[in-house]
Amino acid sequence: MDHDDWVRQELREWSLSLGFRYTPLEEIENRLTRIRAGMEKQEIEGLLVIQKMDFYYLSGTTQEGLLFVPLEGKPLLMIKRELERARVESPIQDVVPLKSNREIPSLIQTHRGKVPQILGLELDVLPVRDYFKFQGFFQGTRFIDASSILRETRKIKSLFEIDLMRKAGEIGRKVYREAKEILKKGMTEIEFGGLLEAAAKKYGHEGLLRVRSLNYEAYTWHVLSGFTGGIVSQSDSPMGGLGLSPAFPVGASLKVMKAHEPILVDFGTCFHGYQADETRMFSIGKMEQKFIDAYNVCKEIHDAVLEDTRPGADCETLFLKTLQLAEKLGYKESYLGPPRLQTRFVGHGIGLELNELPFLAQGQSYPLEEGMTFAVEPKIVFPGEGSVGIENTVVVTRDGYEVLTPVEQEIFQV
Amino acid sequence: MDHDDWVRQELREWSLSLGFRYTPLEEIENRLTRIRAGMEKQEIEGLLVIQKMDFYYLSGTTQEGLLFVPLEGKPLLMIKRELERARVESPIQDVVPLKSNREIPSLIQTHRGKVPQILGLELDVLPVRDYFKFQGFFQGTRFIDASSILRETRKIKSLFEIDLMRKAGEIGRKVYREAKEILKKGMTEIEFGGLLEAAAKKYGHEGLLRVRSLNYEAYTWHVLSGFTGGIVSQSDSPMGGLGLSPAFPVGASLKVMKAHEPILVDFGTCFHGYQADETRMFSIGKMEQKFIDAYNVCKEIHDAVLEDTRPGADCETLFLKTLQLAEKLGYKESYLGPPRLQTRFVGHGIGLELNELPFLAQGQSYPLEEGMTFAVEPKIVFPGEGSVGIENTVVVTRDGYEVLTPVEQEIFQV
Repeated sequence: MDHDDWVRQELREWSLSLGFRYTPLEEIENRLTRIRAGMEKQEIEGLLVIQKMDFYYLSGTTQEGLLFVPLEGKPLLMIKRELERARVESPIQDVVPLKSNREIPSLIQTHRGKVPQILGLELDVLPVRDYFKFQGFFQGTRFIDASSILRETRKIKSLFEIDLMRKAGEIGRKVYREAKEILKKGMTEIEFGGLLEAAAKKYGHEGLLRVRSLNYEAYTWHVLSGFTGGIVSQSDSPMGGLGLSPAFPVGASLKVMKAHEPILVDFGTCFHGYQADETRMFSIGKMEQKFIDAYNVCKEIHDAVLEDTRPGADCETLFLKTLQLAEKLGYKESYLGPPRLQTRFVGHGIGLELNELPFLAQGQSYPLEEGMTFAVEPKIVFPGEGSVGIENTVVVTRDGYEVLTPVEQEIFQV
Repeated sequence: MDHDDWVRQELREWSLSLGFRYTPLEEIENRLTRIRAGMEKQEIEGLLVIQKMDFYYLSGTTQEGLLFVPLEGKPLLMIKRELERARVESPIQDVVPLKSNREIPSLIQTHRGKVPQILGLELDVLPVRDYFKFQGFFQGTRFIDASSILRETRKIKSLFEIDLMRKAGEIGRKVYREAKEILKKGMTEIEFGGLLEAAAKKYGHEGLLRVRSLNYEAYTWHVLSGFTGGIVSQSDSPMGGLGLSPAFPVGASLKVMKAHEPILVDFGTCFHGYQADETRMFSIGKMEQKFIDAYNVCKEIHDAVLEDTRPGADCETLFLKTLQLAEKLGYKESYLGPPRLQTRFVGHGIGLELNELPFLAQGQSYPLEEGMTFAVEPKIVFPGEGSVGIENTVVVTRDGYEVLTPVEQEIFQV
């Protein structure tokens, strides 16, 4: 059978029957309207979208290609490999094949009669070599960094997006429910982490958590027990864990989990690209009292942040208030990491990427808005001993918040 | 306990007891010698290494930071977060804290008395925004793209590296051995893929496969059954699979695997950052004869490539010969993908990343050299029906090759 015929005739039905949800045209149009408001402010005539998650956000597909968004008129989807599949996945009407980036200016010329003089690019992630090539292809065009337009637009989620995040949270709920059956004495951290991941995949979890960065890598198997929970590593988090090697010095290790130790499970799930992030504590037998006490403090801080979560609340103020609370409760030296290595945030925006806006952090003074989604994660670290914490993902609603990770908050004791 | 004290006193012993292997000083020095030969040719006075795998290759650590390599004299390791852990992991002697990239020129000035006038950077991956910032920090310094020096050096593996790849292959061998016990009728592709991943992690597989690219993502759960094996997608591979959503349209899906279908498992494993890649076929009950025949053709092509694998063999010639063989055997239209979507390579270099040199591909006319490692993967695709293939990772030896993925090559039938 011809491949393209099969894709045109069969792919959509099969995909829908297996749970695919395609981004509706109206959703894409709403996003484009907001992107264009940002373009207008920066006097950008056209936007060339390259990075995979920006591309998915504005086209509905992740087939290899680029999206051109003119300030006015219809967007142009240029696809390098699987054109027919992109046509099934994206509601954008103008979809053309692209053999080489060299052709982009002439495709744009054909599409709208002229090549923009000012073109926006994602300069926060675009490699320099590609940039130089674009300079050669687009003679006479000036490039402007448009990444903040994309990040600012993406920080407010639509109902469609929030529903996908709710689905991701639902996968997480199922995983934590099974986790008590999975955790066994004598298991290593990585064995437990691998089986949690397998459970999540069974429910449609996409496995790769995405983050906007050259070097930062996200992963799900962040299972830390006892002393490994007290180790800081490359990641900007209160604790990094031991990991499996100097090439992957974060997350679960081959250490066997012991009775009474705090076992911290920070597990993100992903559905249709949208992530939900959450942390819960486990123990084999009763957890040592020191860690139970610290966990209750994390819960208190977590609840205090959510109590203030509503449109208008200042993100930096929310963070600073948790510092005060941690100090008042006697955890100044261990809150968010060991002294000198303490992180300066208690929450991070989340959606298609793990490091979206907003940040509940030092220096991030701006208000929460309806439709923002973030993970709040107070944690307490005792070097050489272990760490505890809780994390939930929430969406800011008109007058408060909704939790997208509805997992019970008690310590999971087996 | 103080975190830094714990790291200095305990981390190394714990890590070694849990299987960590640190890169020896001699290994780093050999790599630096070869890097410097490349720098000298391009008249680069200093190299600033940023990308995580280049950084690991030359420092032995992946703690957040940058490495400065002067053409002569000692390298300088600048660490942003976990200085003490970097000191444990890296054999480099000069390790200093780095608060902000702004400080780099003055740290280099202090280290060697002057700032280089010509500085090499990894322009194939470095984001434009960072490049502009470096231009501001390094007044009067000219930047040169040094990525080919790094890629050319890394393409020849040392005995230390080959041994780590052998260990990755050994993990793969254990996973495929267990796979027959894991595969059950009624399972979905993603459930099978998730359990294979869990099995691999138990043996120390690091879970994230790395690839040098802005948008390309590697993953292990490439389990395709029946018609999903006939679907092309974003990746430059003969078949991409259905995947789980338009945001992740590759690899395993929620499709239930059926009896007699070809089930293709392309599973990479990773040990200390080093990868081994392999593909095998599975079936529930006997696989349909059409696919068995095609699989035997893939094996014949695979064996033909390896028969010619030795130092001096031309990479493009190896590829073109497989085209001829596929045509002769009657698979011209289905070899390496459906017509119009056929890929133009049958092998890719592999090591710390999945897309290293060499490529056994069209337009890649250069000789194999001793110490090169690559995966060879002939595959045959029938749209709407399924696909088959075999893949092994090998290292080029003095007079031939050694297979690093010693898994039996029969169809795994359950």
